[in-house]
Amino acid sequence: MKAHSIDAYIVPATDAHMSEYIAERDSRLGWVTGFTGSAGTGVVTLDKAALWTDSRYWTQAERQMDCNWELQRTTWIESIGLWILEAVPAGGNVSLDPFLFSIDTWNSYSEALHGSGRTLLPIETNLVDQVWGDQRPPPASSKIYSLPAEFTGSSWQEKVAGIRQQMEQHVRNPTAVLLSGLEETAWLFNLRGDDIPYNPVFYSYTLLTSTNIRLFVDETRLTAEARQSLQAGCPGPLCVELQEYGQVRAHVRDYAQGNVTIWLGTEYTTYGLYGIIPQEKLLEDSYSPVMVAKAVKNAKEQELLRAAHVRDAVVVIQYLLWLEKMVPQGLVDEFSGARHVDALRWAQEHSRGPSFESISASGLNAALAHYSPSNVSSRKLSVDEMYLSDTGGQYLDGTTDITRTMHWGVPTPFQKEAYTRVLMGNIDLSRLIFPTNTAGRTVESFARQALWEVGLNYGHGTGHGIGNFLSVHEWPVGFQSNNIPLMKGMFTSIEPGYYRDGEFGIRIEDVALVVEAQTKQHQTGEKPFLTFEVVSLVPYDRNLIDVSLLSQEQIQYLNTYYKTIRERVGPELQSQQLEEEYRWLQRNTEPFVQSSAGTAAATLCVLATTSLISALLTELQA
Amino acid sequence: MKAHSIDAYIVPATDAHMSEYIAERDSRLGWVTGFTGSAGTGVVTLDKAALWTDSRYWTQAERQMDCNWELQRTTWIESIGLWILEAVPAGGNVSLDPFLFSIDTWNSYSEALHGSGRTLLPIETNLVDQVWGDQRPPPASSKIYSLPAEFTGSSWQEKVAGIRQQMEQHVRNPTAVLLSGLEETAWLFNLRGDDIPYNPVFYSYTLLTSTNIRLFVDETRLTAEARQSLQAGCPGPLCVELQEYGQVRAHVRDYAQGNVTIWLGTEYTTYGLYGIIPQEKLLEDSYSPVMVAKAVKNAKEQELLRAAHVRDAVVVIQYLLWLEKMVPQGLVDEFSGARHVDALRWAQEHSRGPSFESISASGLNAALAHYSPSNVSSRKLSVDEMYLSDTGGQYLDGTTDITRTMHWGVPTPFQKEAYTRVLMGNIDLSRLIFPTNTAGRTVESFARQALWEVGLNYGHGTGHGIGNFLSVHEWPVGFQSNNIPLMKGMFTSIEPGYYRDGEFGIRIEDVALVVEAQTKQHQTGEKPFLTFEVVSLVPYDRNLIDVSLLSQEQIQYLNTYYKTIRERVGPELQSQQLEEEYRWLQRNTEPFVQSSAGTAAATLCVLATTSLISALLTELQA
Repeated sequence: MKAHSIDAYIVPATDAHMSEYIAERDSRLGWVTGFTGSAGTGVVTLDKAALWTDSRYWTQAERQMDCNWELQRTTWIESIGLWILEAVPAGGNVSLDPFLFSIDTWNSYSEALHGSGRTLLPIETNLVDQVWGDQRPPPASSKIYSLPAEFTGSSWQEKVAGIRQQMEQHVRNPTAVLLSGLEETAWLFNLRGDDIPYNPVFYSYTLLTSTNIRLFVDETRLTAEARQSLQAGCPGPLCVELQEYGQVRAHVRDYAQGNVTIWLGTEYTTYGLYGIIPQEKLLEDSYSPVMVAKAVKNAKEQELLRAAHVRDAVVVIQYLLWLEKMVPQGLVDEFSGARHVDALRWAQEHSRGPSFESISASGLNAALAHYSPSNVSSRKLSVDEMYLSDTGGQYLDGTTDITRTMHWGVPTPFQKEAYTRVLMGNIDLSRLIFPTNTAGRTVESFARQALWEVGLNYGHGTGHGIGNFLSVHEWPVGFQSNNIPLMKGMFTSIEPGYYRDGEFGIRIEDVALVVEAQTKQHQTGEKPFLTFEVVSLVPYDRNLIDVSLLSQEQIQYLNTYYKTIRERVGPELQSQQLEEEYRWLQRNTEPFVQSSAGTAAATLCVLATTSLISALLTELQA
Repeated sequence: MKAHSIDAYIVPATDAHMSEYIAERDSRLGWVTGFTGSAGTGVVTLDKAALWTDSRYWTQAERQMDCNWELQRTTWIESIGLWILEAVPAGGNVSLDPFLFSIDTWNSYSEALHGSGRTLLPIETNLVDQVWGDQRPPPASSKIYSLPAEFTGSSWQEKVAGIRQQMEQHVRNPTAVLLSGLEETAWLFNLRGDDIPYNPVFYSYTLLTSTNIRLFVDETRLTAEARQSLQAGCPGPLCVELQEYGQVRAHVRDYAQGNVTIWLGTEYTTYGLYGIIPQEKLLEDSYSPVMVAKAVKNAKEQELLRAAHVRDAVVVIQYLLWLEKMVPQGLVDEFSGARHVDALRWAQEHSRGPSFESISASGLNAALAHYSPSNVSSRKLSVDEMYLSDTGGQYLDGTTDITRTMHWGVPTPFQKEAYTRVLMGNIDLSRLIFPTNTAGRTVESFARQALWEVGLNYGHGTGHGIGNFLSVHEWPVGFQSNNIPLMKGMFTSIEPGYYRDGEFGIRIEDVALVVEAQTKQHQTGEKPFLTFEVVSLVPYDRNLIDVSLLSQEQIQYLNTYYKTIRERVGPELQSQQLEEEYRWLQRNTEPFVQSSAGTAAATLCVLATTSLISALLTELQA
């Protein structure tokens, strides 16, 4: 820092593609702080160092960092800016690696320091990497392969044609789309790799122009088949030209010399690339057209994802049955549970393992919403505690993500009420009918209302998009303010929860497809309304449901959902010869009986009639 | 335009304070286009002219503009930008009056033209005013007066002290707050005027620093009392220095020379003022601290607003009774109805007339959500049509705004269902319990859900803030994306609707206060949850309510609300000796009977018991 005249250096938790999950090689923040959480920002000055992270990780960060690091319990860039303003005198330089910050994040830092006399200075040499030296893990070298046609929604040539059509139709007539997101390139070319744990992506950039296609990647890693697929159309507009990964900046700079307009997504393109394109040649959107196209699954992609969820339901049902038998004997802890469900997933057809590190949390550990056990600290599961399992799988046909919360003994009335209200929220959002193009953030409160009613809430988002054998958190779908409006064909998780510090945690998460709703009025010519079809197919814990809190509509919804589970998962369990699991499924999907005002009145009626009859009979006998 | 080398000139529909309602003198867009709607933007080039406005006004604009003007059916600044890019060659100048555009709007135009080779050129001479010449109405000259202490929540000195405290506590240590919103200055100093129809404000700016206060206003218009109130503390930090209204720019420029930080609201400060303050001396928020302080009413302001709503309920009840009697005789048209309700308002204590132009719309006219009748085109009210009345009053103690929709004959089943679902939406949002600091936009869907369920919706917002004898649309409270989170003490309207083109329109609007909710859990130390207390106190049209669609919770809510109406408005009707109205109120606030599953079961029970008894009796007789 002194050699470069730098007074503060900002270290983010992401890579050059703004990936949420990163490779060990990119774990600069983890290496420098010791903190292994997935979100955070570090700032190092000449005499201080601080880490900012969100409430999920406060406890973990306190444990993992030594006293050279102070923990800041916010994530606002403004608060990082204020800390820097105190730590760095006017005239000082605040520096960062421009390839590790999105345009939007760069702008936020720039605003935070604006007019303060401190300069925000991009520096291309990464200072952490310099210190890390040869201890830093080497670049990935495993194979990059084509996804077989049976697992893709359309050929990459069709996808490219669709994007080019969007370019032509756009009023600004962009001449190129620049893809920085690893999922963008993987999806567009139907390629997969394994550069990042749990995420079948590979380091790459793509510059797709109206006349040619450049893929920046380590070409020695492509399988022969993958190379053949990419270059079958050479030369021509459907020929993929392979370039060195590290050459992307030079190529983009070159390309930007011409009479061009480059379309990109500002949420995840780095300032390092953005900064070399003249302003007037940029077409900026939050997300590139590839990101948006990827989010809307076509009929085949929908079928693939549905099929993956049927096999994934088998896994979770196997796991739930196993827990029922093993927990009362004291034979399971959080870590062994997680290993068991991971193994069950690996055994399924088309499996490529878990889609994220399994969350397996018993009792108070579940109050940390994203706790994962390790083999050194792992709580034993017990019939006296609630247990939360949030797991998912990568299959060649789809990615899954499901959370179930259980209690094998006698839950407290409050646990039961909280669980039921979380479930009510899950149901209320799942059965909501809403107009096309509704923003997720305007409807996610339906998942909270039942909790709000009694003064409860949860502190995380309500859901996220998910891919076809891609990321388990797939942008830009979901219920946050930076998600795009909900459209038919999108998949999102729906995952309300409730967390009681030091006691327990509840989350009920399903993946749902946005589908057309059947409404009375929409035949009048207005656009069809939408609703969700839940594709996760595992029943909820009956032991934790207080049926008396549910409305008739909620019970009816549950019973219909359970009928669907039986119809879709039952045959799969049978074909896998899982007879015990099949019986478990039947038991756990029995319809609920409506305990409503109607039932109460009927009970009163029986009582009244009975006493009337006995009165009459007495009379008769007299 | 030629003399100034201007290729396109943008004419907005607002004034130098970003007022929603404007004085005739500021109606430049209206004068130049002929279009009298309250929202729109005009652009004039050397050979073309176009107007952009939203769907509320398309029909009206088509009727009012001649063929020199083309109508653009969007309001996106991007679309205005694209039109300008087509109309103005590269190298051209696009000009506007910097005092008529907010910072945010200026930035949007600037972005739209960015990199296109067209220059966005502020020009201080207003070209419309030049052409308008001495035909332009003169500046306001009526008196500016102090609001009596009984109608204010606190003295202006207390308000100033509160704002100065916020300045001190702010991490950026602003030295001044610049107030451009007319309501800001009126509220801060407890002054009122009548420069803008329906809005008791006056042209002014305020520069409030930590040591002095400058009010920019035509001081000859102040009453002796007002001047005395402002200058009682002179000299000193609570002395209000009076300056010419037109001198604000020069003074701000002067002040900005010093070592200062000026805090302002970017939503409504004009580029004309903003542009003269060096970037590093600005503290930008969407809304100034005065705007936010004004939005949270203290206990006395809440009581004042509640009291105004009681008298306003009397007005509306008088009007509804009058309509019931007159409409069947064919004696009312939209215009005479509007005049009648206006007259009823004027007759109430502390009245200062209507708070906006009364909307009085019968049959298909109500499908235009913001239709106002005139004496040349006014539809007769009839027992065969629905009628929508959206009116409000200015009282010294508060501003009101209420919409009721009626049918005096036999509504169609669809009208009844639509009305009931709009009412369900109004109820669902009104009774919602939500956490402190929830953003309105995340909960407004609760007002739409009952409509969405059957594929219906409405195209406008769900509510807006309202003042204490100030604007009927008071920023920044409401359910839009640019509103601030809901806090205890805020007032907002809740106004779902449904509009069927060419047939009818429904809207049910009440004003509600944000209050603490009584929930089971909040005693556990979490922040209290919030809910609404509806302060508009007029029953809904029973003829249009299909009780069978309502849930038990909704019926219970309605009955409680009606009980409150009786308790609060009944005595006022009696003290005003409105006996017929009192009886009308009793009739129209009868509790609704729960027609639920419980009732159905009870009916079945009676039937079953009856046949059982007759069987037994037959047996007995045998």
